[in-house]
Amino acid sequence: MAVATLTFADRLAAEVERKRSQLVVGLDPRVDLLPVELRGDISRFCCGIVDAVAPHVVAVKPQLAFFEALGARGIAAFEQVCQYAKRAGLLVIADGKRGDIGSTARAYSEAYIEGEPPLADALTVNPWLGRDAIEPFLGAVRRGGVGIFVLVRTSNSGGDLQDAVLKDGRPMWHHVAELVDEWGADTAGEVGLSSVCAVVGATHPRAVAEARRLMPRTILLLPGVGAQGGSISDLTRAFQSGPASAIVPVSRSLIYAFRDAGSDYREAAGAEAARLKREIWTASGW
Amino acid sequence: MAVATLTFADRLAAEVERKRSQLVVGLDPRVDLLPVELRGDISRFCCGIVDAVAPHVVAVKPQLAFFEALGARGIAAFEQVCQYAKRAGLLVIADGKRGDIGSTARAYSEAYIEGEPPLADALTVNPWLGRDAIEPFLGAVRRGGVGIFVLVRTSNSGGDLQDAVLKDGRPMWHHVAELVDEWGADTAGEVGLSSVCAVVGATHPRAVAEARRLMPRTILLLPGVGAQGGSISDLTRAFQSGPASAIVPVSRSLIYAFRDAGSDYREAAGAEAARLKREIWTASGW
Repeated sequence: MAVATLTFADRLAAEVERKRSQLVVGLDPRVDLLPVELRGDISRFCCGIVDAVAPHVVAVKPQLAFFEALGARGIAAFEQVCQYAKRAGLLVIADGKRGDIGSTARAYSEAYIEGEPPLADALTVNPWLGRDAIEPFLGAVRRGGVGIFVLVRTSNSGGDLQDAVLKDGRPMWHHVAELVDEWGADTAGEVGLSSVCAVVGATHPRAVAEARRLMPRTILLLPGVGAQGGSISDLTRAFQSGPASAIVPVSRSLIYAFRDAGSDYREAAGAEAARLKREIWTASGW
Repeated sequence: MAVATLTFADRLAAEVERKRSQLVVGLDPRVDLLPVELRGDISRFCCGIVDAVAPHVVAVKPQLAFFEALGARGIAAFEQVCQYAKRAGLLVIADGKRGDIGSTARAYSEAYIEGEPPLADALTVNPWLGRDAIEPFLGAVRRGGVGIFVLVRTSNSGGDLQDAVLKDGRPMWHHVAELVDEWGADTAGEVGLSSVCAVVGATHPRAVAEARRLMPRTILLLPGVGAQGGSISDLTRAFQSGPASAIVPVSRSLIYAFRDAGSDYREAAGAEAARLKREIWTASGW
């Protein structure tokens, strides 16, 4: 089978098996936290992190907000970092939480997960505008090779909307979980996982277990471990649909590990990635 | 009173009164729709539109997706267009529909509505992540001069989430409307309007009337007129809280008017803006 016809889920699953890792490094370049000598160059910082963690992680998740905060120069750095990570053999999940009406969603899809080759392998998307706003992204997913991560239950307290109780007694996010399961039904790859994935905060372990039940074929991205207080040992059930059925992004506590370790930023990030990779693999039970 | 201490709502209200206009031009630069001689230069196209419509509109609403689709070059154009529109005396509403957890939302706020001066005067934001994710934007609004537009009921069909029925029988978007009213309660300016504004699709006239009732102090941005089929004559009730209590963005049917008119794109856009401005002002009943 040609590489281009593999689904995003299959590509991710192959990397998870090969590296025995479900770890994703979140790239949140906050200028004031960078090593002093790199404060003018977030691209170089992020590429240094990529070099250091590449053996231990399956994907990078650059957070667009921190690149956008630097304007056009920041977006140029974002593009460089995406290309560098791909050349290092990592999948790229652009964390932009985009969402808009159909014709505009198509422009976002073109910006991040379409093109030859697309800038990223997947994009985080916001479901608030409903199915017709997600459809352009689903089109890109169906054409193959890329994925989306729909915000189902985010890692913040944020329950004003997501936990609102529906007429049938369920929280709103359960309804969204069922929509995600439905949207992804026709995208399942060879390993049986869908490329329409979901974000569920590791800070809500009960929600993670419920999400697994509501979305059996869905890859769960579980943010909130580390700086936000989520615990890896609480996540075991997320992996019940296979070793690649959940992935764990860690950002600040990994990329800024040098600030506590007192060592070179790459060395500290590499060591922390190796440690987290083992801890997550053990917790996954695979 | 120094200019810096005026709220966004007061600044908008002053422009609405001065120009007798509630029209906003949406800047959606789609490369394939541009005049042939400008296809390589969306900045020049958008600045030409700004020149042509400035006497007739109170604000521009650049849609970030279309700039992002061109990468770093597109974002550089976005920055040029924002600065050009401000110099032409127009308010700038960056249409990015951003939303993320607190620390990341802060980076988005810094990117668009903070700084000296901020790139834009307001940003559209997505409420799906709840109050704590909106808080960084509210901080910027409270410090003065800028606003946000929260997606309450969007112009697409999109009812999967927004129309979901809650335990008390109301649609989800009513709940969000009440949150918006509450979030903006302490931001009301001299004219009594809040700078925490709401997006409600002109394509849903009944929802517009209900939104007015649920959010009496809130400025409503009413997209969907023109290409999406919303009718200006259905919007009268939106203006019940004052001449600036609702504004109407028109994008494609205005900026690409030359394609039907067969004239210079600036001339066609200027004529269409003058016509729409009068039609909306009449419908507003002020």
